[in-house]
Amino acid sequence: MKPQVLLVECEDRPGLVHGITGVLFHKGVNVVGNQEFVDSTRRRFFMRTEFEGAVEETEVLPLLRKVLPDDAEVRFARTIPKRVVVLASREHNCLADILVRHAFGELNAELLAVVSNHDLLAPLVAKFGHPFHHLPASGTDRSAHEEALLKCIEAYQPDYLVLARYMRILSPEFVRRYPARLINIHHSFLPAFVGARPYHQALERGVKVIGATAHFVTDELDAGPIIVQQVIPVDHTHDAADLAQAGRDVEQMVLARALKLVFEDRVFLCGNRTVIFD
Amino acid sequence: MKPQVLLVECEDRPGLVHGITGVLFHKGVNVVGNQEFVDSTRRRFFMRTEFEGAVEETEVLPLLRKVLPDDAEVRFARTIPKRVVVLASREHNCLADILVRHAFGELNAELLAVVSNHDLLAPLVAKFGHPFHHLPASGTDRSAHEEALLKCIEAYQPDYLVLARYMRILSPEFVRRYPARLINIHHSFLPAFVGARPYHQALERGVKVIGATAHFVTDELDAGPIIVQQVIPVDHTHDAADLAQAGRDVEQMVLARALKLVFEDRVFLCGNRTVIFD
Amino acid sequence: MKPQVLLVECEDRPGLVHGITGVLFHKGVNVVGNQEFVDSTRRRFFMRTEFEGAVEETEVLPLLRKVLPDDAEVRFARTIPKRVVVLASREHNCLADILVRHAFGELNAELLAVVSNHDLLAPLVAKFGHPFHHLPASGTDRSAHEEALLKCIEAYQPDYLVLARYMRILSPEFVRRYPARLINIHHSFLPAFVGARPYHQALERGVKVIGATAHFVTDELDAGPIIVQQVIPVDHTHDAADLAQAGRDVEQMVLARALKLVFEDRVFLCGNRTVIFD
Amino acid sequence: MKPQVLLVECEDRPGLVHGITGVLFHKGVNVVGNQEFVDSTRRRFFMRTEFEGAVEETEVLPLLRKVLPDDAEVRFARTIPKRVVVLASREHNCLADILVRHAFGELNAELLAVVSNHDLLAPLVAKFGHPFHHLPASGTDRSAHEEALLKCIEAYQPDYLVLARYMRILSPEFVRRYPARLINIHHSFLPAFVGARPYHQALERGVKVIGATAHFVTDELDAGPIIVQQVIPVDHTHDAADLAQAGRDVEQMVLARALKLVFEDRVFLCGNRTVIFD
Repeated sequence: MKPQVLLVECEDRPGLVHGITGVLFHKGVNVVGNQEFVDSTRRRFFMRTEFEGAVEETEVLPLLRKVLPDDAEVRFARTIPKRVVVLASREHNCLADILVRHAFGELNAELLAVVSNHDLLAPLVAKFGHPFHHLPASGTDRSAHEEALLKCIEAYQPDYLVLARYMRILSPEFVRRYPARLINIHHSFLPAFVGARPYHQALERGVKVIGATAHFVTDELDAGPIIVQQVIPVDHTHDAADLAQAGRDVEQMVLARALKLVFEDRVFLCGNRTVIFD
Repeated sequence: MKPQVLLVECEDRPGLVHGITGVLFHKGVNVVGNQEFVDSTRRRFFMRTEFEGAVEETEVLPLLRKVLPDDAEVRFARTIPKRVVVLASREHNCLADILVRHAFGELNAELLAVVSNHDLLAPLVAKFGHPFHHLPASGTDRSAHEEALLKCIEAYQPDYLVLARYMRILSPEFVRRYPARLINIHHSFLPAFVGARPYHQALERGVKVIGATAHFVTDELDAGPIIVQQVIPVDHTHDAADLAQAGRDVEQMVLARALKLVFEDRVFLCGNRTVIFD
Repeated sequence: MKPQVLLVECEDRPGLVHGITGVLFHKGVNVVGNQEFVDSTRRRFFMRTEFEGAVEETEVLPLLRKVLPDDAEVRFARTIPKRVVVLASREHNCLADILVRHAFGELNAELLAVVSNHDLLAPLVAKFGHPFHHLPASGTDRSAHEEALLKCIEAYQPDYLVLARYMRILSPEFVRRYPARLINIHHSFLPAFVGARPYHQALERGVKVIGATAHFVTDELDAGPIIVQQVIPVDHTHDAADLAQAGRDVEQMVLARALKLVFEDRVFLCGNRTVIFD
Repeated sequence: MKPQVLLVECEDRPGLVHGITGVLFHKGVNVVGNQEFVDSTRRRFFMRTEFEGAVEETEVLPLLRKVLPDDAEVRFARTIPKRVVVLASREHNCLADILVRHAFGELNAELLAVVSNHDLLAPLVAKFGHPFHHLPASGTDRSAHEEALLKCIEAYQPDYLVLARYMRILSPEFVRRYPARLINIHHSFLPAFVGARPYHQALERGVKVIGATAHFVTDELDAGPIIVQQVIPVDHTHDAADLAQAGRDVEQMVLARALKLVFEDRVFLCGNRTVIFD
């Protein structure tokens, strides 16, 4: 039997762990894994507990609320897979990797549909038997496009949206509809290059590593809480196309890792950063 | 004020976290960090808790023993730096790195002395003002050499011995005197090469990474619990001397990391592996 | 226009680069990239030159032979994609990654067929429209199985065989038929674990990195020339299943990199190691 | 006998390798290593050749000039160690690593002196017996301080200046005196943070890697050609002090690698990037 997972986040105060574990102990469950973290600057407490034993969320949560501050967010992780819609544009790598991992049960997710502003990746998605929605963005203004997008997405009632190299900037209004539920992957460099054609900028500067960052999307573009980051080495023999390929490889790897963590309820948000119980 | 650290290891059973945190809560201390791990195969429980508050070990330990199994090892981490003797031979890298980090207070350790079977590194140690003992191994048998070594070392009553590229194999009898207190660094490769001249073997096979492993020493040579491992990339243009230099660089980095973890009481032993609360 | 690629390997002697570049210069081609390496132990010379200009292999090779030792292997890299047959068993990761990269033209290869001793991955291969041959190994002896395998493979006249987690050991006779044409991916650890259930051994020892090695297959099992190696970090919270997943992720990444290098004629063999002109 | 090293940089044109190697061949020297690179955008040609044989620079250079464009920079690498002055402030890590590597002959350099705007590191430098110049910057304006700096430095006639965590911004006038001779190390992040207290910014954003970049200093602050970059992983349990320590560790490693490459004449400048023949 897979263990159940309890998630708690609240203002920090003395006795929280004692109180929470007391409830679990008295219900007779067996804690098999327990991780806590206190952000001392923000005075926030985070806890993720894996336990075995036949208890219902409905009987445990009221008991837990008694030992927790009023602001506490406390819940059992949903044992059913996360409902996910993926947005893509023309690059296939991240999307294909998600399709394969989903097909073989590696992600704790149900892939509901792929939505794209281009139709290029329709055949790839068709191979794996998922709905593909082509919602062109050109020839329409952003708000009209996002309205169509929202209508299409909301029909699926997803828990999470994944931007798998979706190349359009979403409006703050759109983003706010999916707080902590919108995951993006973007290229990153040391030093970082902003603006157009980042790989050409990186080439001109002669970077020696290419990285990728998976993060939650917030109002401020590309500045949301970071989930996973990694880099791979490159050198002067690599042209812009090689750097772009290196970028795609590391993006695919980093996004896969981030999705695994998020979909297994291992990621908390704490201000503009993440607490990850891996 | 630096927080105090409580360390607990015992057989796993329900209610441990609840019991331990109860004692701390009732003593009025403030837990600022808490990490547990259960090795479900061995049914062993490990916990490292950082807390703030004016309590004495002598008043808390008896209370904790009441909520713990009889086999429990429970103690406050020593707030005073670990007493350390370093053994070296002719390679300077790891030793020099330790000397520098010690000199600038980066290690939670008091470096008592350096012992070597060669006198080559005496001037380096002298720069930093530590005792250096030259105990030649040639022209004497191993047991006589180890006896001299022990006598020299024991005068310092060290908590830990660090083998910083000490190139002699210690006898099982010697090793057993320092259970979980003897830390070694050794080269590692993918795939691993055993026997003499590992860098020449690695060159012949054309390895693409050079690694290092810091581990506790046990009876079985180079097979003790691993503390830290890392690799750096190499390629076909590197000759044996380049591979050896790469090896030294990664060894220095890995040993420094391992010593930091061990000397801050972040490493537990669990069978033949480590549990690390970083 | 894509540049042409000249490959030269021969005994080292003075004047080789001068002689080779003289032929190219007098034919009026424009060298855009040039890499040489001399293995001084074996006195072997390796060169890979990219050049632009309308010359035929048939007119250049005779001129090059005049300036090269008799043993020289000299050829233009085939501009047509490499013909490839993939062997797999039950693990999908490496195979799926190859299928996707092939589908989007990322590998300089034509994927002719997938052959497997299990039928589990037939649906995956079918999605991408390639022939899938199920040649069960159980209930037949190795020589009979390999005979069937050879017959099936040889019908495709492949340049390369890729073992994408093919879980059977091939006989020396089989291996010898594909000298420097058989590419394998296997898990690697620091330290390496041989024998059965390597992930359980790695767990018991508490490794901190999981690696993978792509290599050419030679008579000696898992000891052929290494093409690519990489590692990813793990820790004590990872159980055997997590380690295996980490292993699959790094294997997929490493094999993709190795195939790209080999299929673009960037890899030479030199004794039991590779010379890679990346 | 250590091989000699020939360095050539010039405008690209057909026949360069043929011409250069022809001169070497006719002088009877034995080329043991040869690396070229053409930056096709800038049409610049770079070559580094290691050869054995008793020839004098004075007899070979005139012959080489005949086969090279007028703009060619061609020279034998100096076999004597590079003359180096190090600038530091209050952080010891990079400086201590340089002192140790220099003391054991790992850098192809002669360390002439350490100059600092603080006196904190004087005892460290004294251990290794080098001159230490304390030139306080406070209470004086930048131009006066830089004048004193220049006067102190120029007395040593250094080939290279190394900024080993020197925490003052040098004026463009100062920088221009040391074109391609001023090497700096600075922290880097994914994403990059500019401005004050970068580790606090990195903490707030929750970065998962900490990097470092060694680069040549040019007019534009921290934007000169990159020599070496590397990262190490961090997580949410690391506070600002931990991130800073991780930063120091990776900076030390990256600067050591960059100095080795530069001092062995393995680094060319090409526009705002480096060509590195490792």
